[in-house]
Amino acid sequence: MGVPRPDAYAVEPWILREPAGPRLDDLAETETTFALSNGCLGMRGVLDEGEPTGQAGTYLAGLHELRTMVYTEERAGEPEATQTLVNTIDGALVRLFVDGHALDVREGGLLGHERALDMRAGTLRRELRWRSPGGEVVDVESERLVSFRHRTAAAVRYAVRPVDRPVDVVVQSALVANEQQPLRPRHLNTKDLLRHPLEPLEHRATGDRLTLLHRTRRTAFVLGAAAEHEVSAPRGVQVHSESEEDAARFTVAVRLEPGEELVVVKYLGYAWSEHRGLPAVRDEVAAAVTAARAAGWDGLVADQRAVLDEFWEHADVEVDGDPELQQAVRFALWHLLQATDRAEGRAIAGKALTGSGYEGHAFWDTEMFVLHVMTALRPHVSRDALMWRFATLSKARARAAQLDLRGAAFPWRSIAGEECSGYWPAGTAAFHVNAAVAEAVIRYVDTTEDGEFARTVGLELLVETARLWASLGHTTGDGAFHLFGVTGPDEYSAVSDDNVYTNLMAQRNLRGAAHWAERFPDEAAELGVDPDERGQWLTAADAMAVPYDADLGVHPQAAGFTDQPVWDFDAMTEDSYPLHANFPYFQLYRKQVVKQTDLVLAMFARGDAFTDEQKARNLDYYERVTVRDSSLSACVQAVLAAEVGHLDLAHDYVVESALADLRDADHDSGDGLHLAALAGVWIALVAGFGGLRQVDGRLEFRPALPEGLTRLAFRMGFHGRRLRVTVRHDGATYEVLEGEPLTLWHEGEEVEAAVDAPVHRPLTARPRRQAPTQPKTRRPARRSRPPAA
Amino acid sequence: MGVPRPDAYAVEPWILREPAGPRLDDLAETETTFALSNGCLGMRGVLDEGEPTGQAGTYLAGLHELRTMVYTEERAGEPEATQTLVNTIDGALVRLFVDGHALDVREGGLLGHERALDMRAGTLRRELRWRSPGGEVVDVESERLVSFRHRTAAAVRYAVRPVDRPVDVVVQSALVANEQQPLRPRHLNTKDLLRHPLEPLEHRATGDRLTLLHRTRRTAFVLGAAAEHEVSAPRGVQVHSESEEDAARFTVAVRLEPGEELVVVKYLGYAWSEHRGLPAVRDEVAAAVTAARAAGWDGLVADQRAVLDEFWEHADVEVDGDPELQQAVRFALWHLLQATDRAEGRAIAGKALTGSGYEGHAFWDTEMFVLHVMTALRPHVSRDALMWRFATLSKARARAAQLDLRGAAFPWRSIAGEECSGYWPAGTAAFHVNAAVAEAVIRYVDTTEDGEFARTVGLELLVETARLWASLGHTTGDGAFHLFGVTGPDEYSAVSDDNVYTNLMAQRNLRGAAHWAERFPDEAAELGVDPDERGQWLTAADAMAVPYDADLGVHPQAAGFTDQPVWDFDAMTEDSYPLHANFPYFQLYRKQVVKQTDLVLAMFARGDAFTDEQKARNLDYYERVTVRDSSLSACVQAVLAAEVGHLDLAHDYVVESALADLRDADHDSGDGLHLAALAGVWIALVAGFGGLRQVDGRLEFRPALPEGLTRLAFRMGFHGRRLRVTVRHDGATYEVLEGEPLTLWHEGEEVEAAVDAPVHRPLTARPRRQAPTQPKTRRPARRSRPPAA
Repeated sequence: MGVPRPDAYAVEPWILREPAGPRLDDLAETETTFALSNGCLGMRGVLDEGEPTGQAGTYLAGLHELRTMVYTEERAGEPEATQTLVNTIDGALVRLFVDGHALDVREGGLLGHERALDMRAGTLRRELRWRSPGGEVVDVESERLVSFRHRTAAAVRYAVRPVDRPVDVVVQSALVANEQQPLRPRHLNTKDLLRHPLEPLEHRATGDRLTLLHRTRRTAFVLGAAAEHEVSAPRGVQVHSESEEDAARFTVAVRLEPGEELVVVKYLGYAWSEHRGLPAVRDEVAAAVTAARAAGWDGLVADQRAVLDEFWEHADVEVDGDPELQQAVRFALWHLLQATDRAEGRAIAGKALTGSGYEGHAFWDTEMFVLHVMTALRPHVSRDALMWRFATLSKARARAAQLDLRGAAFPWRSIAGEECSGYWPAGTAAFHVNAAVAEAVIRYVDTTEDGEFARTVGLELLVETARLWASLGHTTGDGAFHLFGVTGPDEYSAVSDDNVYTNLMAQRNLRGAAHWAERFPDEAAELGVDPDERGQWLTAADAMAVPYDADLGVHPQAAGFTDQPVWDFDAMTEDSYPLHANFPYFQLYRKQVVKQTDLVLAMFARGDAFTDEQKARNLDYYERVTVRDSSLSACVQAVLAAEVGHLDLAHDYVVESALADLRDADHDSGDGLHLAALAGVWIALVAGFGGLRQVDGRLEFRPALPEGLTRLAFRMGFHGRRLRVTVRHDGATYEVLEGEPLTLWHEGEEVEAAVDAPVHRPLTARPRRQAPTQPKTRRPARRSRPPAA
Repeated sequence: MGVPRPDAYAVEPWILREPAGPRLDDLAETETTFALSNGCLGMRGVLDEGEPTGQAGTYLAGLHELRTMVYTEERAGEPEATQTLVNTIDGALVRLFVDGHALDVREGGLLGHERALDMRAGTLRRELRWRSPGGEVVDVESERLVSFRHRTAAAVRYAVRPVDRPVDVVVQSALVANEQQPLRPRHLNTKDLLRHPLEPLEHRATGDRLTLLHRTRRTAFVLGAAAEHEVSAPRGVQVHSESEEDAARFTVAVRLEPGEELVVVKYLGYAWSEHRGLPAVRDEVAAAVTAARAAGWDGLVADQRAVLDEFWEHADVEVDGDPELQQAVRFALWHLLQATDRAEGRAIAGKALTGSGYEGHAFWDTEMFVLHVMTALRPHVSRDALMWRFATLSKARARAAQLDLRGAAFPWRSIAGEECSGYWPAGTAAFHVNAAVAEAVIRYVDTTEDGEFARTVGLELLVETARLWASLGHTTGDGAFHLFGVTGPDEYSAVSDDNVYTNLMAQRNLRGAAHWAERFPDEAAELGVDPDERGQWLTAADAMAVPYDADLGVHPQAAGFTDQPVWDFDAMTEDSYPLHANFPYFQLYRKQVVKQTDLVLAMFARGDAFTDEQKARNLDYYERVTVRDSSLSACVQAVLAAEVGHLDLAHDYVVESALADLRDADHDSGDGLHLAALAGVWIALVAGFGGLRQVDGRLEFRPALPEGLTRLAFRMGFHGRRLRVTVRHDGATYEVLEGEPLTLWHEGEEVEAAVDAPVHRPLTARPRRQAPTQPKTRRPARRSRPPAA
């Protein structure tokens, strides 16, 4: 949404290249798009020399500080503190001095500057030519990676060459803690704490190794970083290393002739723990940096490529006809990999480890969007992510008890498992986060057939969330089971009765728990599940209220929604959006206006609960009142638009979702990626144009392409097979790339594909329907269509 | 509610006496009950020597500081700052040193200690006999007043006498700014700011005059206090005066023989202004203290009694049969006078000037409860209070615009007129505050026939609030006018549709505005009211939705309320209350549980909108779900219980309301009085047992007494007359004490009373009904009934 900024990046299939830059106004945004991470360690794409910067940031999964909440009115059950992702020790910094002038892109003359994220190599490269204020011209090449293979390691290779005359060159590699930064107004609430989050414990500089060890004040994490350096120069260099509380520096000085090159490779190792003390963490830091150096630069680069080769083999999506979308979907997949790969039991945040937005909190959309995708592409990361939920189960149980409920109530937003939302109508009341956890559990097991996980972890997650729903709802005289006073996905409504999405997801959750409790009777009994309780879950699920407005022939998002007055969209201008920045929730909540799909998401996640005609009518109805002030919306609208037959509209929505961060459409990508929206690109393509629905352990496809695309091919895993599906206007091809033959459904027809025995089927045209309309100024940008034949 | 503590006070008709004390655990509570105020200057009833104290406090009406709000999630339309009542310069302090020992009730031996608030004299007296750790015994008598006649003046008379042997006595009278105090946990949110709210400007000590001048930091009020002293001693005394930034002291030293007495009279003058600068305020302080001293102690005391004689002549309520209630109703009236008398255009806070609870904010209950009473007893203070609303009209207009509404939106809580609630579902959404303002305007003019006020002030208040309702509501296809997404008086529900109380009060507001706009056409035209707009108000009022649950035969508090599950009262214990301290709003909002009367209040405020049978059924229904976790509830329940015929229950509720602060039933009287509950005592007696309803400019009475009372007599003003109504079991007597003859209605019969021509009428027995039940542990304490005849 919003006015897209001019293209910053060249359109290439595998590389995100900023050919001319850096653009100082967009630094924060490019720091996000160029952020490197492996899910464990994240480094924003700050320039090597550290300045200018939009918002510097180096993050370690789970490392957070507490911040006391302030309420003007006391309310029982509100969290006392929030958890805030901490900007840890910055290890990426490499400064260059040319004849005494510090390299700074704002000074002297920048004769060329390019950054390129290579999504197959897994590195961020930078090349620049700079003329110092003194007139010396140098070429600089740097390359940076955060290792997928070594979860706490990163490295930088930094090379300098004089262009036309000899120069005195100093390269200074540093570690910096508590780094200052230009905080932007939207971070008002966190600025006080984050100004100096780390308490120094130890600092060392010995030979080419630098070490800093710090501690967070309230959470008492001990953390550290170390750097080691390899210097390659045409002649002897002077080196010096030094350290102080919040900084350590390794400095190399040499005079270079034209044609000569100074190369400094910086190996980084990190460690942190909320349990272990200084001696342990000190040793872990040393081990991490030593391992990185032992691998060597070439080894790290080779490892990186090997991981990525394997990833793309399992995950690549090919899009013909829209090169920008092709690039964007790979960019999305790249960041999904980065966000999840080595998270290994830590929360996967809404911004991943690419920025401090939302304080680094994880939300429901990790399960509903990110894990949805990763379960198909790299299921072990979904398992790891669900293990995080499992590890926080005792906190979720305590939260449920605090809310006078049974079972487990997972937090709306959190890093370590405790609820961190200070606004309960859009936090605590959004209980659907629990259904999202259950949904991810069911999907993971459905996809992987990982029975051991189901038995030891999944069952308990399902049981405790089912218990939550059972205690949250009530049965009325007519036998219907209701969930009152809850908040659905749409953040422009809150605290409603019988939110359709929530109720349908709770229904699946209750049924899943009952089904698995039957499948694992011993484990269920250990959890205290008896036949009575199972029966109650099934009764509640069967009796689940699903409001329907018979007059309009549509489902209200929640009871009464369609009785509300409609928002006065005609009085809005482009500047009125996002509405939550300009209108109080008081007004938004009581009117028909939808920030992000809610009922439409229900039609995707629980498509089985709606007829085709209902889907078409509901989509038409909700398109008129949906403003997409959330990046989570367009991708789901794309899926339903495609299902109902509005394929061009679906294409528009896919592209909107795909460019959310590449165009910084919401003007907030500087705070970090919209990770779930990136996952939504895959969902929109695969579930939308691929028509994939995964129902009760089987794959069903109803593919269809918009005019603007000529081919879509995607890969995925299922029941131990690796598949590729290729969709063209004239048909779809199903291939098993690896594994046993697989039965699947194409447009309702059962087909079997096997290795070297692909299946091809033609496509049935979608019914023609009148395209839905959107509120004024909210129509998605039209994707150019090929001229009519 | 809660377990009442043992009686602290002797039961006497005109005096609140603490015969044995002070009880150190209850200091904060007695500081509240013994607080002195005239509505302009308030002094908590702290011991003369300042320590021990529960919470010291000296307040000046309107003097406040700003405190920046902190939100964990950003929301448009939320206030950036709140206003906090400032503890200003303490002038009451008088320390005594006996042979070098500081008088401290915790040290030495307290041989006697009594405090007595004399509600006819208007002073707080204290007598004590103390044996110092050195063994010297002294008698101390102090008397303190805050002058009704001189709005910025107070005085203390302090006398010391040795009992049995000569002693060296030092009396030290002080002014103290930024005084330290033991803050209790519930003040967590404000403690930082209030620790040092005043910036020193000037300090002086010359002769017997002390002066301190300070400034608030953000609001930039300049404020000051001065003290002058008269010393009376049997022989020459040594005096010394000194000052520093935050303190000034006047010290008297003398050796006294047994039988001799040292008397120090301290005159205090205050001044403060948000506009005027230091020179002006310095002079105002000097003027205030000079005027006080010119009046002299005896003059101040005489003035005080004259004001009170006149007040009780207009306001006294006599209750026979329940001496505790007799004392309590006078205590209530005393504090109503203190809260309002010289407020003169400043907000009247929920805690008046008796404590820092609610940050010193004024709420809707000032209009609905306090002004309801004061309009009958002392109407000029109601006019002054409404002038405060009028003075803030531009802020209320700006607030409405910010909320995308027309007209004026008065704040839920405020000191200076800006919205200060940081929790909009129970703040901004509670639009009924605007109807309360309109109601108070209508009642004031209806009572006083003050046409000039109606024309110049009242009309504009009615017009702007009517505009708010017109823009807040919407009309549905069936023609009904709805108010969606608003919060009614009951704080255990929020953001509902068509709250019956709100809708009926808005209806009256709309009709009142239309009526007055017709009556004052020129002034209305100047306000932009045209016949179209008037017509829209009347149409909306006539079409106002009033939900009714035909199945149950009761009115839901708001649409859907009776469909909600009922709170599990049987699972509660006494410790579960107040529920908001133990259960999240999430649970409270979605269940049938009522904190304070809402629908029942509607039946009082808009009794004309309900049939007798509906009132009985509704009361019965809501009694079952009302928990009275607010002090505003019992008095209204008393009124309806009396109307419906549950007279003994009404008596129970009157007493609960009357003892709210005297017994500290909610364990929070230390933060300040429950002023509206005190007003509710009068309402419960007069509207409940007196059966008074004021409808369209006429007084209607349907009196009835519970068994426990033998006589109720109350006074009030109406249309320039002064009336007394006396109710006995055998009949009611209506007397005009002053003014022209008056027509009124007794049980529907028109009667005329005149001076020296009282009217007596017998009472018709109320229909017998089954008494309603309350939730477990929520039945009000039974008032002892006389034995059956």
